[in-house]
Amino acid sequence: MADAITPRSVDFAQWYNEIVRRAELADYAPVRGCMVIRPYGYALWENVQASLDRRFKETGHQNAYFPLFIPYSFIEKEAEHIEGFSPQLAVVTHGGGEKLEEPLVVRPTSETIIGHLYAKWIKSYRDLPLLINQWANVVRWEMRPRLFLRTTEFLWQEGHTAHATSQEAQEEALRMLDIYADFAEREAAIPVIKGRKSESEKFPGAETSYTIEGMMGDRKALQMGTSHYLGQNFARAFDIQYLDKNNELQYCWTTSWGVSTRLIGAIVMVHGDDQGLILPPRLAPIQLVIVPIYKSDEERSRVLEFTERVAAELGRAVRVKVDSRDEYTAGWKFNEWELRGVPLRMEIGPRDVANEEITLARRDRPGREGKWTVPASQAAAEVDRALADVQQGLYQRALSFREEHTHRPKNWDEFVTAVEDGFALAPWCGDPACERAIQEKTRATNRCLPLDQEPLPQGAKCIHCGRPAKTMALFARAY
Amino acid sequence: MADAITPRSVDFAQWYNEIVRRAELADYAPVRGCMVIRPYGYALWENVQASLDRRFKETGHQNAYFPLFIPYSFIEKEAEHIEGFSPQLAVVTHGGGEKLEEPLVVRPTSETIIGHLYAKWIKSYRDLPLLINQWANVVRWEMRPRLFLRTTEFLWQEGHTAHATSQEAQEEALRMLDIYADFAEREAAIPVIKGRKSESEKFPGAETSYTIEGMMGDRKALQMGTSHYLGQNFARAFDIQYLDKNNELQYCWTTSWGVSTRLIGAIVMVHGDDQGLILPPRLAPIQLVIVPIYKSDEERSRVLEFTERVAAELGRAVRVKVDSRDEYTAGWKFNEWELRGVPLRMEIGPRDVANEEITLARRDRPGREGKWTVPASQAAAEVDRALADVQQGLYQRALSFREEHTHRPKNWDEFVTAVEDGFALAPWCGDPACERAIQEKTRATNRCLPLDQEPLPQGAKCIHCGRPAKTMALFARAY
Repeated sequence: MADAITPRSVDFAQWYNEIVRRAELADYAPVRGCMVIRPYGYALWENVQASLDRRFKETGHQNAYFPLFIPYSFIEKEAEHIEGFSPQLAVVTHGGGEKLEEPLVVRPTSETIIGHLYAKWIKSYRDLPLLINQWANVVRWEMRPRLFLRTTEFLWQEGHTAHATSQEAQEEALRMLDIYADFAEREAAIPVIKGRKSESEKFPGAETSYTIEGMMGDRKALQMGTSHYLGQNFARAFDIQYLDKNNELQYCWTTSWGVSTRLIGAIVMVHGDDQGLILPPRLAPIQLVIVPIYKSDEERSRVLEFTERVAAELGRAVRVKVDSRDEYTAGWKFNEWELRGVPLRMEIGPRDVANEEITLARRDRPGREGKWTVPASQAAAEVDRALADVQQGLYQRALSFREEHTHRPKNWDEFVTAVEDGFALAPWCGDPACERAIQEKTRATNRCLPLDQEPLPQGAKCIHCGRPAKTMALFARAY
Repeated sequence: MADAITPRSVDFAQWYNEIVRRAELADYAPVRGCMVIRPYGYALWENVQASLDRRFKETGHQNAYFPLFIPYSFIEKEAEHIEGFSPQLAVVTHGGGEKLEEPLVVRPTSETIIGHLYAKWIKSYRDLPLLINQWANVVRWEMRPRLFLRTTEFLWQEGHTAHATSQEAQEEALRMLDIYADFAEREAAIPVIKGRKSESEKFPGAETSYTIEGMMGDRKALQMGTSHYLGQNFARAFDIQYLDKNNELQYCWTTSWGVSTRLIGAIVMVHGDDQGLILPPRLAPIQLVIVPIYKSDEERSRVLEFTERVAAELGRAVRVKVDSRDEYTAGWKFNEWELRGVPLRMEIGPRDVANEEITLARRDRPGREGKWTVPASQAAAEVDRALADVQQGLYQRALSFREEHTHRPKNWDEFVTAVEDGFALAPWCGDPACERAIQEKTRATNRCLPLDQEPLPQGAKCIHCGRPAKTMALFARAY
């Protein structure tokens, strides 16, 4: 190992950057604001994709692919949309050696071009609902890039659906929010709060934006996925109409929803420790690393033979790596796989071979406490059990951490202290000006109006301005 | 169904366009030269991807993701590379509302930016070979677009590997060519000829380019995949160096290889007929469509119940669609699924229910010949057998067709006639000027120098110029 990693407690941002790069998840690209996702990071993303894609398909969505380039005039058609996105656009002005008549925008999101095509494809109520998702790269010009969290180009999925009624579209937006929350909690082991965004935090062009918010290891909030009920805003801008059963022309109701490679940043920030990554087993590219330990050549062949036998008996579904590289010591390998966050390690030495046993070590419980020995004949069952246990343990730890740092301040002073420490749930008046004032004074933003609302106390007043409160809101400093 | 489809024999290009759009594989986008891949086309692409990705991973490759934007100066670093690609570039000149200091190229291929990163990552012989692939979109400005075959933006995979020796790199380039050929023949049911590109047809910056060439339904050739041995050209341009075992600095040897959504065009053109697509079962999004047939409500419930029972007994691995839409007639459905190329259809009517049997119809053998009835208890086994049979049949048909239209002309007159009909295998002098003259006179291009060379006849002379022949070459008109 090279230099020690900056501890989380010393400089969380620095720790994050070092971990992401040293564990070889990603690297900066030679173009400002862009990143390279390295094989280990991409394997993690592939597992995220597979897990989400299965959920999308189970709920009737199909994948498709829409163009990277959008005519500039499309972006201008929805007034809020252009206002929100114009500062972030990358613009192609030349193609094939010539200046283009109309500049092209590299998609920052695809509501507009998909709206144009839906208007062509949708004719009658029989064509509805239209439920399409795409996995794609998008570009939003970024002045202060951070790997996975904010980069000029990133990978994501964007779902775009069209419906015959407002109610169906609203249900769809909430269904996808539930899918995101289910994914975050079950697969990424990250508890999330589902909520509605306030007016000022909405997606440009949406009627209602929903979000899942997670608490990172530095107690800041991260928006981990959003789902938007777009009403008829894009349908009117792009003429997405259908003939209803009475043969009358109606505008569709649409939704869009997305998660991105930002989720990888969340996994790093929620679970990692000063030794490196800790990956949730359900998403880890390598769930179990087996490190054979030997000194002499004679030991080597006995240990490797036994190792292969044990590895062969593991469940086919377990993602295993046997690290039998001779050029590194066992200690070096332990550090390496700890840095890379492999949830479970199996050690096999000459004594284990003699005793027909194996030693397991959990990444989430360093030291003796997380290390135990079982008969080799029980290895497969024990690995399955331990992986499930690590998965559950990571979730519980993240949940306890969030609860410990979530506060219900009773007055403004308590609120100020609360957002220094983590999340603050407080009654709020609903006024954007008040929201802005809170942010200016505390750097905490309105993350969402939780869907799972605690009942507003009788005569509750806004935590900041003291006017009558309309709703509970979650405030926190955020990425 | 709307208007009849233009027959292949009347206008193959028109037939192709109609099939692609009416089967809803793809559509033109509002940006010139760009396409939208619709859900049915994308599902086919997902099967292509899964099948190739498995082969890549089995041979030790890992996926990663490199940036969309490449600094213009990178493209210029390899002299042949910039010459080959500059007329096709899309250029971003503005980002985040400002003019960029250096324009960015939207990647036409990624040798340059990957070269830059490999130079950072590779330090010693221990880091080699480095075997990375990416699935991505690329942009090459296209003046005469055709869906899937030539579009400004397309989807592809590009493998990029770095090796310690020239021999390893050459072996890698050929290994990937074999993988492409294996995929084409086993999965897409398209026989291909593996060959080396002539000097003038090489990839800009390659030492050797290999290709697989298939014969389409109009007897033209299509380049279906390429694999390049890049020597040290990019390693020198981007300083990709490693310390060898003697601690001396050496340049790496690199390769790159790719296939694209163009493969979907090949599948359409090789197998389709005047009724529409015919998809090879191993890649078809729907392998079997079941059409229940009934008139009365009473029949309907009996037939649907029986249908569900049969469907449930089919192998889990079979991709089945039960089309029980009431708003369309059985005849309409037959046409629809024929247009969409579903390889096998199962019909279940009231008489089938009474007799406990089902009727199967093969898409590749229209009419009575391809239709037969079996006991319902044998449905699962019969479907498996029939799908394997269709797969094999499509391959054999394509192979016979190619052989029928491949000629070995003895003189120039025979050559001219041969390339009117299909492929011409002929001795060639190796001179680019001669190659150019052949193209000008016949519109046939040098597709490749087949790897599986027929021995050059004693004293063989170039089919065009009569000088001594150096090699056999495959000439054809091409896409």
